[in-house]
Amino acid sequence: MSFTTEIEVRFKHCDPAGIVFFPRYFEMINDVVEDWFATDLGLPFHELVKENGAPTAQIQATFTAPSLHGDVLTFRLAPTRIGNASLDYELTAHCRDELRLSATATLVHVARLGRSLAWPQAIRDRVSAQIASA
Amino acid sequence: MSFTTEIEVRFKHCDPAGIVFFPRYFEMINDVVEDWFATDLGLPFHELVKENGAPTAQIQATFTAPSLHGDVLTFRLAPTRIGNASLDYELTAHCRDELRLSATATLVHVARLGRSLAWPQAIRDRVSAQIASA
Amino acid sequence: MSFTTEIEVRFKHCDPAGIVFFPRYFEMINDVVEDWFATDLGLPFHELVKENGAPTAQIQATFTAPSLHGDVLTFRLAPTRIGNASLDYELTAHCRDELRLSATATLVHVARLGRSLAWPQAIRDRVSAQIASA
Amino acid sequence: MSFTTEIEVRFKHCDPAGIVFFPRYFEMINDVVEDWFATDLGLPFHELVKENGAPTAQIQATFTAPSLHGDVLTFRLAPTRIGNASLDYELTAHCRDELRLSATATLVHVARLGRSLAWPQAIRDRVSAQIASA
Repeated sequence: MSFTTEIEVRFKHCDPAGIVFFPRYFEMINDVVEDWFATDLGLPFHELVKENGAPTAQIQATFTAPSLHGDVLTFRLAPTRIGNASLDYELTAHCRDELRLSATATLVHVARLGRSLAWPQAIRDRVSAQIASA
Repeated sequence: MSFTTEIEVRFKHCDPAGIVFFPRYFEMINDVVEDWFATDLGLPFHELVKENGAPTAQIQATFTAPSLHGDVLTFRLAPTRIGNASLDYELTAHCRDELRLSATATLVHVARLGRSLAWPQAIRDRVSAQIASA
Repeated sequence: MSFTTEIEVRFKHCDPAGIVFFPRYFEMINDVVEDWFATDLGLPFHELVKENGAPTAQIQATFTAPSLHGDVLTFRLAPTRIGNASLDYELTAHCRDELRLSATATLVHVARLGRSLAWPQAIRDRVSAQIASA
Repeated sequence: MSFTTEIEVRFKHCDPAGIVFFPRYFEMINDVVEDWFATDLGLPFHELVKENGAPTAQIQATFTAPSLHGDVLTFRLAPTRIGNASLDYELTAHCRDELRLSATATLVHVARLGRSLAWPQAIRDRVSAQIASA
């Protein structure tokens, strides 16, 4: 099962070529992860980051077509693996039928001092259910 | 041969955990690529983007340790391959002896309409020389 | 008559103190102006900026209370004056009943070469109607 | 006495019109304030924000001419008043002889809980000396 949300390309996202500047896609991806945690996993990031954190340990993204100001992007995120403290997901963004980017990434659940920390069981259960229903 | 430059971690780069928010690393990486073009390749981005562009087609990054406000990061970029319109590089950032991130990416030289465009011969020559001297 | 929209404070907006970093408020304000043009003035920014522009000529903002990650901010924008090529507005953001920021700003309609350009009559009419109904 | 530093306009600062997007100027201004604290006041922001903070309480900026990718901006900051916990400054940015922006702002020294906090005497002394020598 995947999580889907839409983000409109804004003036602030665009570079002098009039297309999304690639670091702005990573801000969008972070928003999508936040929304997924709040909506599907029941753990809003503003709760999670009070005590702990979930930084991105690695990410790879391929930008297959440029996005223009005014485009509405449909992001789809699906978890693919949950380890003790790690969590892999894959993500795509489309505008209408055109793929604009595809990415895979790993989040790590950490304590404030930076040590990895097992995911709460409730998160593990929901992510596992999403992976199982894929 | 690699290109080296330093970037200090600023307040603006840091998140509520007090560490660099990962999309800000991609802004830093873009600055490093700009500096490399201006310094080693003789083609400042503000010249390059007047007519054409060099968007990032794909990038993958691994964040091996967090960076704190005030850290001075040493970025090292080395080209690894130049195709007709593509250009691969690898990049690392260290703080003192600690690796903070490693990345590989592909730039594509494009005309304003988005079609790929062969790199100018002067760029090709300089990048090839850097690769050869690695 | 004023335009109202909501923006949720995201992780990306917040600084190491856990509150919105003030330059991010200006990105939010730009989004609000974009939404106002699209919704109330019938001129989406991605249309407007194809030929011309509407840069901010001056802005002043007072931040009366900090905003936290997870807060939902209600922005209210009202135009106060439309000149030949200029447009003044005032804006507030509240979280529940608490005022977080108030701002006033001036946009200028410009041609691509930077010269000021009279607002289209349709824009002038709608803004004037909003001012009149305040 | 004023503090002076240079910032080059980067690709990341520029919008689809090819000029600096105004919220990016506020990121630059924050960098200038950071540099001023570190260089002239002996209190790097990464030290200051460990325990306390210095958020911007109000700012007003006038953008008198657009800045282009590749421009080198000379920022000049001068304190104008130091209160118990507040600090006013004025700032300009020029490119060669052309004024690009002028701003005035107020910082407030706060404890982590958000209450205002008297500036340390060493800061007060240095700022007062700068104001006196203006």
